[in-house]
Amino acid sequence: MSANQFAFQDVIMRLQHFWAEQGCLIWQPYSEKVGAGTMNPATVLRVLGPEPWNVAYAEPSYRADDGRYGENPNRMQMHTQFQVILKPDPGNPQELYLQSLEAIGIERRKHDIRFVEDNWASPALGAWGLGWEVWLDGLEITQFTYFQQAGGVPLDPISVEITYGLERIVMFLQDVREVWKIDWDGRRTYGDVLLQPEIEHCQYNFDVADVDNLRQMYNLFEAEAKNALRHHLVIPAHDNVLRCSNTFNILDARGAVGVTERASYFARMRDLARQVSDEYRQQRQRLEYPWLAESSTAAAAAVSAGQAAESPAPAGTAQDLLFEIGVEELPVDDVVLGSAQLETLARQRLSEARLSFTALTTTGAPRRLVLQVQGLAPRQADDEQVVKGPPLKAAFDAQGQPTKAAEGFARKYGLAVADLVRRSDASGEYLYAVQTIPGRPTAQVLRDLLPALVSSLSFGKPMRWNSNGVAFTRPIRWFVALFGSQVVPFTYGNASSGRTTRGLRPDNSPAIDIAQAADYDQAMAGAGVVVERTQRRALITQQLAELAATVGGEIPHDAALLDEVTDLVEAPCALLGSFDPAYLSLPREVLITVMKKHQRYFPVMRAGSEQMLPYFITVANGAPRDPDVVRHGNEGVIRARYADAAYFVREDRKKPLAAYNPRLATMTFQEKLGSMLDKAQRLEGMTPVLAERLGLSADETATAVRAAQLSKADLGTQMVTEMTSLQGIMGREYARESGESEAVATAIFEAYLPRFAGDRLPRAKPGLVVGLADRLDSLLGLFSVGLAPTGSADPFGLRRAALGIVANLIEHQAFFSVRGGLALTAQQLPAPVSAQAGEDAAVFVARRLEQMLKDQGLRFDLVDAVLAVRADDPYRTFRTVTALQDALRTPAWPAALTAYARCKRIVRPLTERYPLAPDALTVDVSRQLYESYLVAQAQISPDSDADVLVNALIGLTAPINRFFEQVMVMADDPAQRRANLGLLQSIAALADGIVDLSKVQGF
Amino acid sequence: MSANQFAFQDVIMRLQHFWAEQGCLIWQPYSEKVGAGTMNPATVLRVLGPEPWNVAYAEPSYRADDGRYGENPNRMQMHTQFQVILKPDPGNPQELYLQSLEAIGIERRKHDIRFVEDNWASPALGAWGLGWEVWLDGLEITQFTYFQQAGGVPLDPISVEITYGLERIVMFLQDVREVWKIDWDGRRTYGDVLLQPEIEHCQYNFDVADVDNLRQMYNLFEAEAKNALRHHLVIPAHDNVLRCSNTFNILDARGAVGVTERASYFARMRDLARQVSDEYRQQRQRLEYPWLAESSTAAAAAVSAGQAAESPAPAGTAQDLLFEIGVEELPVDDVVLGSAQLETLARQRLSEARLSFTALTTTGAPRRLVLQVQGLAPRQADDEQVVKGPPLKAAFDAQGQPTKAAEGFARKYGLAVADLVRRSDASGEYLYAVQTIPGRPTAQVLRDLLPALVSSLSFGKPMRWNSNGVAFTRPIRWFVALFGSQVVPFTYGNASSGRTTRGLRPDNSPAIDIAQAADYDQAMAGAGVVVERTQRRALITQQLAELAATVGGEIPHDAALLDEVTDLVEAPCALLGSFDPAYLSLPREVLITVMKKHQRYFPVMRAGSEQMLPYFITVANGAPRDPDVVRHGNEGVIRARYADAAYFVREDRKKPLAAYNPRLATMTFQEKLGSMLDKAQRLEGMTPVLAERLGLSADETATAVRAAQLSKADLGTQMVTEMTSLQGIMGREYARESGESEAVATAIFEAYLPRFAGDRLPRAKPGLVVGLADRLDSLLGLFSVGLAPTGSADPFGLRRAALGIVANLIEHQAFFSVRGGLALTAQQLPAPVSAQAGEDAAVFVARRLEQMLKDQGLRFDLVDAVLAVRADDPYRTFRTVTALQDALRTPAWPAALTAYARCKRIVRPLTERYPLAPDALTVDVSRQLYESYLVAQAQISPDSDADVLVNALIGLTAPINRFFEQVMVMADDPAQRRANLGLLQSIAALADGIVDLSKVQGF
Repeated sequence: MSANQFAFQDVIMRLQHFWAEQGCLIWQPYSEKVGAGTMNPATVLRVLGPEPWNVAYAEPSYRADDGRYGENPNRMQMHTQFQVILKPDPGNPQELYLQSLEAIGIERRKHDIRFVEDNWASPALGAWGLGWEVWLDGLEITQFTYFQQAGGVPLDPISVEITYGLERIVMFLQDVREVWKIDWDGRRTYGDVLLQPEIEHCQYNFDVADVDNLRQMYNLFEAEAKNALRHHLVIPAHDNVLRCSNTFNILDARGAVGVTERASYFARMRDLARQVSDEYRQQRQRLEYPWLAESSTAAAAAVSAGQAAESPAPAGTAQDLLFEIGVEELPVDDVVLGSAQLETLARQRLSEARLSFTALTTTGAPRRLVLQVQGLAPRQADDEQVVKGPPLKAAFDAQGQPTKAAEGFARKYGLAVADLVRRSDASGEYLYAVQTIPGRPTAQVLRDLLPALVSSLSFGKPMRWNSNGVAFTRPIRWFVALFGSQVVPFTYGNASSGRTTRGLRPDNSPAIDIAQAADYDQAMAGAGVVVERTQRRALITQQLAELAATVGGEIPHDAALLDEVTDLVEAPCALLGSFDPAYLSLPREVLITVMKKHQRYFPVMRAGSEQMLPYFITVANGAPRDPDVVRHGNEGVIRARYADAAYFVREDRKKPLAAYNPRLATMTFQEKLGSMLDKAQRLEGMTPVLAERLGLSADETATAVRAAQLSKADLGTQMVTEMTSLQGIMGREYARESGESEAVATAIFEAYLPRFAGDRLPRAKPGLVVGLADRLDSLLGLFSVGLAPTGSADPFGLRRAALGIVANLIEHQAFFSVRGGLALTAQQLPAPVSAQAGEDAAVFVARRLEQMLKDQGLRFDLVDAVLAVRADDPYRTFRTVTALQDALRTPAWPAALTAYARCKRIVRPLTERYPLAPDALTVDVSRQLYESYLVAQAQISPDSDADVLVNALIGLTAPINRFFEQVMVMADDPAQRRANLGLLQSIAALADGIVDLSKVQGF
Repeated sequence: MSANQFAFQDVIMRLQHFWAEQGCLIWQPYSEKVGAGTMNPATVLRVLGPEPWNVAYAEPSYRADDGRYGENPNRMQMHTQFQVILKPDPGNPQELYLQSLEAIGIERRKHDIRFVEDNWASPALGAWGLGWEVWLDGLEITQFTYFQQAGGVPLDPISVEITYGLERIVMFLQDVREVWKIDWDGRRTYGDVLLQPEIEHCQYNFDVADVDNLRQMYNLFEAEAKNALRHHLVIPAHDNVLRCSNTFNILDARGAVGVTERASYFARMRDLARQVSDEYRQQRQRLEYPWLAESSTAAAAAVSAGQAAESPAPAGTAQDLLFEIGVEELPVDDVVLGSAQLETLARQRLSEARLSFTALTTTGAPRRLVLQVQGLAPRQADDEQVVKGPPLKAAFDAQGQPTKAAEGFARKYGLAVADLVRRSDASGEYLYAVQTIPGRPTAQVLRDLLPALVSSLSFGKPMRWNSNGVAFTRPIRWFVALFGSQVVPFTYGNASSGRTTRGLRPDNSPAIDIAQAADYDQAMAGAGVVVERTQRRALITQQLAELAATVGGEIPHDAALLDEVTDLVEAPCALLGSFDPAYLSLPREVLITVMKKHQRYFPVMRAGSEQMLPYFITVANGAPRDPDVVRHGNEGVIRARYADAAYFVREDRKKPLAAYNPRLATMTFQEKLGSMLDKAQRLEGMTPVLAERLGLSADETATAVRAAQLSKADLGTQMVTEMTSLQGIMGREYARESGESEAVATAIFEAYLPRFAGDRLPRAKPGLVVGLADRLDSLLGLFSVGLAPTGSADPFGLRRAALGIVANLIEHQAFFSVRGGLALTAQQLPAPVSAQAGEDAAVFVARRLEQMLKDQGLRFDLVDAVLAVRADDPYRTFRTVTALQDALRTPAWPAALTAYARCKRIVRPLTERYPLAPDALTVDVSRQLYESYLVAQAQISPDSDADVLVNALIGLTAPINRFFEQVMVMADDPAQRRANLGLLQSIAALADGIVDLSKVQGF
């Protein structure tokens, strides 16, 4: 082997040996450029179907977008994965994985190794899986996945997919800061052999590749994939799918793929991938699954109560129940969700089972959900079963002797006829059999109850893991089920209950036997596991504060992050790390986003200020043997990530923001709607008109127009290309640095608001206007080219766009005609817009408005009533509904509505419109009503607020009522009749344009 | 590791370990489909430039043409190479290689391992190398090459390239007969994981791939390669070259690439590859060769005589000289060529060196060229040096005293004036310095003479091997140079002389010290090396006969094969092997071609018959420890090769021969000249006309037409696709089996005759006609599209085609107008043919005719004389020249020629043609000459044979001579003068159309 025991090639060879010894077939990298080892047919096809398959191989993986021209020490368009597939799950894959790390020199006791939820999906392959990133002292070194679906098909059995990031692991082992410095073989470095190709591939992918040629290639590859599929040729088809994928990646890196075009490419690739998978599965089926014979098909029953032999003698007194569900690391959300559900369901089930108890608590930690019940009754309360029998008259004959029917009924329930009781109901008197069912011993009941409890827990993304048909959020590996000191025996999935739990991973997950339920807390504390979630959270808070204080800092409040970290560890141990203060010159959003999103680090602020300090705090799982080792690792990670961001920002800053606009010409928004540059130019065209409609000042308008010009420019920058969530934020930052006014910079940012439910809204009008233009353009544009959202799919986020329009207009109390806005938009769009598309878009916005108002708790009938007439103007609608809702609380309203309704109901069927004819109103009350009407009518217009209408109608209540008391509306005299009807029609019309009161409750 | 110690994956891992320990960087297979590990940039680029590089990697290699739909147990479109590059040559690469075989379980003493000349060239990469196939018991397991050139550039230093055929090696180790049965990892077989992809790739490559799409892809890849090159991006360009190559391979497998199109594709790929190489070399130069620092640049002088310290005391008596040049295995031809040259040059050099000897012999074996000189004088004969000095009159003054000139001259040569001698020549008497130069001791002379001898040996393909600038046919690894018992010390290349030679490879090439020159023969015999070539040859002959006799067989005489095998071994050991008699049903040409061409096996015939027996004889190098092991291996090889051929023939036989014609439509003959089917149809069109012109009977004509129809069909069969040399042969075979007449079958075969210089010619006319049509079509067609041969290049074999036309017409004594044939051809060709093209083609044929006749020893003057008038009809020309040559032997001829020449010379300058005017011939001799002329003229026509002309001219000799004696040609009387001239013009014209006698010697 090489001089350096951690030489790159030696690590590969050691992994090959390790996995060969575990029974894996050693495979070779694929003969096409793949984005990941997953795309090698040895994974993406072999995971399909029922046959077993264990394989391991290195795979140079190409991701054009990750290229940095070799200038970044950690990111490359090509990196090397080491891929392992274990199919089916061997039962202890995490343990095997940790052993493989030991085999290459990483001892788990010396490091903070964690399994952090990370689910994987490849739209291009129609594949996804659930699992974790594995962190080594904060460094993501492996993707560990239970592969759930490939080629659009659920997998059975499930494969475990382990993907090592070799460069990162070797950099770690060799303690080098640049990938290029990795010692490859004891003589040459990684950079010696791969730096130049890296630079060249980047230049090709980003700057040189001919877009037209690549598009043609893509189409040809696709055609050949289809051609191969027509002839049922799996591998040639797959090869061409891979070429499609790689070609797409380069087109994308080249900046030549727009948002909707991307969706279309993905759909095409997914469709091909699905067909390839189908063909492969059919092929194996035709071959009758030749590898199936060798696999042991020990398919056990999924759920079974334990054997009687194991059943303990019924406990005579109340006992504590301990129920621990031992799992592989839970997604953080599921720790809370799971323990909450566990509590609710346990209470419900115990109650249904007539089991009383004195106290019940649940909690959760990454590897366990725990239910503890104190004083659980030793047996169920007795139950009474009542069964209705024959009617009395059929039960006894004339002599009062029981008939055969009565006797048969009694016999059926093992009773004498004399034991039957008589009860009456509406249909007469009947015989009933009443049985007392004695409660069963609790220990017996639990045998069914506990597995049923597990199966009734539900999670957002249920996972399968060759679990005999059951699903859970992560694989269940053990159960502790103790009623007092007795095990409650059962099997669920492929785990059986017992008294053995597991300690901390860094301690090698030692087996811990629990003698009796009540010993649990102490046993776990002894093992260093902080099971109680609130205790963990408090511990972390305390550690954070103490550590931050050592550098004069404090931790900004961030409940979400704290919650997340709480459920990432079982034994929190906060560690303070530092980073090069030079990075503080990066935009703060970048620094914090990187820290929190990627690393779950806590940023440290100078106490009492907004100023960041060059520190971070990470919370390790368990106290590491040498904290400096773990700190050193984590510092390396943040350094690498900041280096990456600094690279982007440095590159981006080389040009003013406006200079990124030309690049937008190469980014297609949607094929028929042109490039992102076209879109920006449309926004620029719409902005002055919208500004006028929304009453902006001349200054504001100028700001908005400039912001519109620059609004998409940051999409062309590398930082935003890398972290899309920073769009607008970087635009603001770069605008400032480019000498734009603060108002323009703000508008660029605020045009994106709100970005998600609950996000803040734009404060200034220019951002409101630009954002409105952007959303109208997307909405009408995509509707007009047939890309409206469907019930199940909204790939372009149009629901969010429409909600944004509505929310912002309401926030700014801005009257605005959506249809008017859409008409303006239509003038700008490159393709003709059909009337139907405009109508559909308007209705779509109205639906979002409806949904939003109803979600806010406004009365559904009022929302419907106002929307029926005012949906086009969201703020006016909102204002009307809220005003109505307030106004309707006045005591006079019900009578007013009733009076109005009488008028409205009479005239509603009429098709003819009768003129007001005051001269023909000969009766006093008619004339009075007419006078009152005139007063009301003078106050009201179709633009009136609802309270004006309400007040007017209240004023009309008495005259209307008097009118109806005294006047025969349908008078014999035609002139009089027409005059009456004309008057009532006019009164009914008072609400026109404001609200359709016929939709209001009580009408 | 795996359960099976020879599991496929374990062999790969062992090779990785072995070569890592030798200092190789372990690399991965490439991310593109490559035809060989060579095409991985780790080879094809890294071998360029001066930097050291040692690397090893597995490489799945794709060669579409080799696909057999998985039906063949040994041939696949994908096989796995294990590639090693050692740059520079470590000095003992063969030894390292043999150690690597030991590392995977192949012991050299148990097997027959041989290095058999095999040179490698990739037109697509502009790369070539010299080296060997390595045979393991007859099985080619490795290509071992000294890489000489890549990207069109000579390499310096040279890389050693070792390419293992992994599947073959593992099949051998596991003793399985089918590649699909290879145990991959102790659980799954090679077939388990690779058979299905193999079948699919074959179906895709042969039947499914869309030719239009692939052509477009090729063009796009080429465009992107050029695009990348414009930006100096080596790897992206190389990737696209690889894609071009793979796409081309599939197009070719698909049968969509014609002969000339192929040449064009190759030229395009070669051009790209060259540019990529150039870019790479420039890039490394710009980077200042970063890896160069680490390499030890111990560049020694290429050639140096040994140090005086080693020089022995001069031997006082004649001694024997032994000079052995120890080499890596020589190409067979170079064993004979080298020893012959060595003898000639040694005699010459020794003579020049005034060294006398009693006897001198040379011989050669694969690893040595040997010069032995008996009784070599202990020192050179003395020499006399004579230098001309001043003329006598300048050397002495009037007093007879020496002048300063004389004294200076004498001093220059260390003599007194009195020692100078006087000699005279044409210009007078001079002083001369005469010095006797005493001979130097032989041992000293040899120090320079021997290396000079080596450097003056010349071979067809000189090889470099980091040999300090010297070249040889294979690397020189040692010299034994003994004069008597003394070493003659010198260094040449990177080998120094000594007394140590090497024994047999299977014995681990043991060092053998030779005490004195005379001991050599005995020492080598003791080591089992049969150095003497004639002895080896006789030994093999004897072994062959004895072994064949054991099965009632005999070995057909085959001097070429015997010679070849003689120089493939140093210790011949013939072994008899057998093969399945079922294969005897294959065409005999196939069986023998496979045996001889690929394996150098001797076929065994039933004694006294033409019938093959199911045996073969191989000649191993050295007696194997267990002959059965070696026999078993060789039998496996021939079985595999016959299985391959049987597969082709079986597939081919599924359809009648005619059914292969449609496939020809996909095989381009030349872009502008259409497909091979078009060509066949043109032949069919021409054949009846040519048949008529050549006087074929109706039956023969019908045969010829049918043969023309089928003449190219076998190009569509798999057997011919695999072994092009069988074209025509398989056509004949398949025609017979398809029910064609024997005459048609024969014509199909004979149309190809002659295939090479010295080949037999068609016996029957139909083959003659079809072959003529084919050759005329190729000639005129390719001339007309600008693809005539150039001085240095004849890629389409048009010289051979023209020679074939000429030779066949002469053989069949067929009068035929080449221009007439070309005119007929022109009518058939798809594109218009320029007059110039037709003229050029006709002249081209005439030149070949000239060359052939002169090569046959016919008189150059006669050939020129006849060609000047009859070149259009080859047979007529031949007949005329031979007739002339015969006739001219008659004694009367010289006088006849003189007489004719007198007539011709007088009239040659005339521009006017004078009529015959017998009435004006008033002189008797004039009239007599006229009468004689009329007699001759009546016998002669432009078509006459030459002897008629000769006889006629002989008859005219006397009348002509008399005429000139008595008549004044230029008579005063104009009428008479004109009549005389008219008569002489007519006589001169007698030879018109037959021969231009003015070109004949003696005219």
